Amino acid sequence: MCRWIAYRGETVALERYVTEPAHSLVVQSHSAKESIGATNGDGFGLGWYGDRDEPGIYREVRPAWSDENLKHLCRHIRSPMFFAPVRAATSTPTNRPNCHPFVHGKWMFMHNGQVGDWSLIRRRVEALIPDELYKSRIGTTDSEAVFLAILGAGVETDPIAATMRTLAVLGDMVRASGTIEPLRFTSALSDGQNLYAFRFSNNDTPNTLYYREAHNNVVIVSEPLDTERANWKAVPPGHLIVARQHGPVELRPFPAVTQIAAE
Amino acid sequence: MCRWIAYRGETVALERYVTEPAHSLVVQSHSAKESIGATNGDGFGLGWYGDRDEPGIYREVRPAWSDENLKHLCRHIRSPMFFAPVRAATSTPTNRPNCHPFVHGKWMFMHNGQVGDWSLIRRRVEALIPDELYKSRIGTTDSEAVFLAILGAGVETDPIAATMRTLAVLGDMVRASGTIEPLRFTSALSDGQNLYAFRFSNNDTPNTLYYREAHNNVVIVSEPLDTERANWKAVPPGHLIVARQHGPVELRPFPAVTQIAAE
Amino acid sequence: MCRWIAYRGETVALERYVTEPAHSLVVQSHSAKESIGATNGDGFGLGWYGDRDEPGIYREVRPAWSDENLKHLCRHIRSPMFFAPVRAATSTPTNRPNCHPFVHGKWMFMHNGQVGDWSLIRRRVEALIPDELYKSRIGTTDSEAVFLAILGAGVETDPIAATMRTLAVLGDMVRASGTIEPLRFTSALSDGQNLYAFRFSNNDTPNTLYYREAHNNVVIVSEPLDTERANWKAVPPGHLIVARQHGPVELRPFPAVTQIAAE
Amino acid sequence: MCRWIAYRGETVALERYVTEPAHSLVVQSHSAKESIGATNGDGFGLGWYGDRDEPGIYREVRPAWSDENLKHLCRHIRSPMFFAPVRAATSTPTNRPNCHPFVHGKWMFMHNGQVGDWSLIRRRVEALIPDELYKSRIGTTDSEAVFLAILGAGVETDPIAATMRTLAVLGDMVRASGTIEPLRFTSALSDGQNLYAFRFSNNDTPNTLYYREAHNNVVIVSEPLDTERANWKAVPPGHLIVARQHGPVELRPFPAVTQIAAE
Repeated sequence: MCRWIAYRGETVALERYVTEPAHSLVVQSHSAKESIGATNGDGFGLGWYGDRDEPGIYREVRPAWSDENLKHLCRHIRSPMFFAPVRAATSTPTNRPNCHPFVHGKWMFMHNGQVGDWSLIRRRVEALIPDELYKSRIGTTDSEAVFLAILGAGVETDPIAATMRTLAVLGDMVRASGTIEPLRFTSALSDGQNLYAFRFSNNDTPNTLYYREAHNNVVIVSEPLDTERANWKAVPPGHLIVARQHGPVELRPFPAVTQIAAE
Repeated sequence: MCRWIAYRGETVALERYVTEPAHSLVVQSHSAKESIGATNGDGFGLGWYGDRDEPGIYREVRPAWSDENLKHLCRHIRSPMFFAPVRAATSTPTNRPNCHPFVHGKWMFMHNGQVGDWSLIRRRVEALIPDELYKSRIGTTDSEAVFLAILGAGVETDPIAATMRTLAVLGDMVRASGTIEPLRFTSALSDGQNLYAFRFSNNDTPNTLYYREAHNNVVIVSEPLDTERANWKAVPPGHLIVARQHGPVELRPFPAVTQIAAE
Repeated sequence: MCRWIAYRGETVALERYVTEPAHSLVVQSHSAKESIGATNGDGFGLGWYGDRDEPGIYREVRPAWSDENLKHLCRHIRSPMFFAPVRAATSTPTNRPNCHPFVHGKWMFMHNGQVGDWSLIRRRVEALIPDELYKSRIGTTDSEAVFLAILGAGVETDPIAATMRTLAVLGDMVRASGTIEPLRFTSALSDGQNLYAFRFSNNDTPNTLYYREAHNNVVIVSEPLDTERANWKAVPPGHLIVARQHGPVELRPFPAVTQIAAE
Repeated sequence: MCRWIAYRGETVALERYVTEPAHSLVVQSHSAKESIGATNGDGFGLGWYGDRDEPGIYREVRPAWSDENLKHLCRHIRSPMFFAPVRAATSTPTNRPNCHPFVHGKWMFMHNGQVGDWSLIRRRVEALIPDELYKSRIGTTDSEAVFLAILGAGVETDPIAATMRTLAVLGDMVRASGTIEPLRFTSALSDGQNLYAFRFSNNDTPNTLYYREAHNNVVIVSEPLDTERANWKAVPPGHLIVARQHGPVELRPFPAVTQIAAE
């Protein structure tokens, strides 16, 4: 179980959401409220879009709460679109390539969830990654593999459809593996212009997801950054958020699988 | 607030106390029960006596719960006397020289507590350290400074008296500094032959300390390693444990300050 | 290019070879003489057999020359059989799972070399790893994959034949991939009882390998630990060393591939 | 011995000087040419001024050449004034608080050199630091102590005079300590508006310093970033560079000590 935030809006210092709020992401790294374990101390990451096509990225194995660099970077880096996750490792080692977010070219991804029993289906999920993307696999997590699989499933043409197709295949793989472990997918994806966030599980309650809009800004979070719950809307299971560069924030149900397959 | 264990007895693998018990030190690094914060994720250390005069030492900034090396070392290193602390940093950085235990020659020390408002009296405490020991100060914690001060207060002649003298001076310094922060000192000290553990506070409840004897083994802990509380005796405030190499385990009240001064 | 040492003999403190000699492994981490780059500062490892079936292991991303823990561990850990490698990373990240040695059960392995253009054949090499071993792949190096492939090629029955078979398959894969990059394999393998070391390249000069015998001790090294070159014998290309637990040290040419295939 | 660069000029991405040149700072971390040791692998730092009064800072214990974060940050952070040092540790541990640059409020400092035999005069140098600054001492290096001493010597009124006064006192201390080790001070200091760089030694050749001007940009370096030596001017011993925000770059001899004292 991890915690994350994604932001799109006017250019702000990352500290506004990562370190300053009463229940900021850094506080959540220590004392999360809506996850099974309160501690998300197995590394963290920052990814932000600036004046390059690809995002900048900072990942570190130390807990977010004790990293002096994180505090400085959040105060000095400004961005109109950024991701910040903190990690509670499950079965893969705590090292930088296993920390979220994952980046490939202009695409960035982070994930809170699990892909059934990873040890049972890892090879099959890795086989979804096209050869030209497999060399970008520098870690061993399920999340990085799923990201590269989504990239290979037509992300440039239609990011939502690519994600739906990948989830459909993953769901089949998890079922076929005979595990009772769920597929849980509470994730964010961006190309630097548009932001997509997903809340899904195949057979139980997906990990939590909330968002808050104000003016043209949207911040999407695993759990609210403060106690003013009225400002935070829960994303229902099987729903996604689309925040295009200059558009409104849309909350949609997942498209039907048949609809995806037809595309 | 930190958690620690100290052991003296038959030679055992460190894992017997550090990683194996139901509420082992590694579990306490994640989910301590008797400290203000449950998380002690700001580094840890191991110190053990073997066939050298001075102890071996392993210190690392990562949380104990995610350090693969710790698991291996605890399984493969055997010792008749070892210390293992996990740290919850207060005001000093998380780096190896600030992790307990501290070692100088054959002497080893670890500490759970605080020395008033450290920023107010740091210079005065550092001034207690003799010149020839000051070059061994490689970190910036209060605990390391107190250790070097104890060494300089006659530890070779009488470790208990050296500790009492230092505590008396520290108590005066804390009072004189005008702070309301307490002097809390729940610590362990060893020369490789004998083990001393102290529980003290100048004006409030000192941090917890328990011990368990079985045969010729004694394990001294911040909090019990399992739920069989009957096996664990609490060390009362103002008391110390002396476990000499071949002797019984003694629980004693602190000697009177006048008695110390007279020595 | 990396540097390593392997030892089998009377029980000694690791420091005798890792830190004490004039041109010790730690010196080689800083100033290697027989490798393309002098610096091997991208992490290191220790693996040693003691009173458990499986070896202990310590791996760290910092340069060996600046790691205080390494110095302490080498002074305090004693073993009759140990491996110590320092790493110069090529194309995979510097993190602990990518540091040598690699351990699986009682087996331990370290490697200095390369497997053609890894990005071209990684998937094929990974496909050599049996399913039940694939869950032990926690890093992304060629070396770890080759180790797991050797384990899957019948290491329990005949470690040398398993290694030869794997090298034959790797050689075919490298050739088929169309690269001009060589297969270089200067490696050590042990089950805790016996020590095997290999020096091989498919089409150019393999990385250096030397050994020194004295009484019943043998130390095998990438480059000599001192300037008394007369004591050090070079292992010729296409040769291997076998040092069984209670036997003499044997230097042998690689068995013919046909011979292997027949086994 | 360390290597560093300081930049003042039009706003540029840090990569222009830190990672891109043929003999960039990152290359120097691996293969320095004008220092005693070629390897500067004991941590590094970045400090840059942006839209805050105080600079941003990133410090890490790993070698600069293997830090993926450094590469990303240098590509994505832009600044009109920044410092970037790589460290070859001498006698103090490799941890973040011991990495340059050092920051206090708007002031930033980095140093390549030594202060006699540090173990002999550490206490006296630390005693130069005013009480209100001593709580900012979070490491144990001579360089951090010298920085805080300079801040306490009137840096707000006259940074050059504060530096000269501190050097005069340090020179006396080194002499009085009876060591033959020199005082070497090749340093950079900035308040975000103005950049000062010093090259000095009390009794031998100070560590190298060069600078290159182009248009309104100046880059000051331990050794040139490329082989076009004609573009690089050596700073003579006992000289300093002053690059005020909107002014020309001035190369000056150190003011006479009597002149300083009179101020």
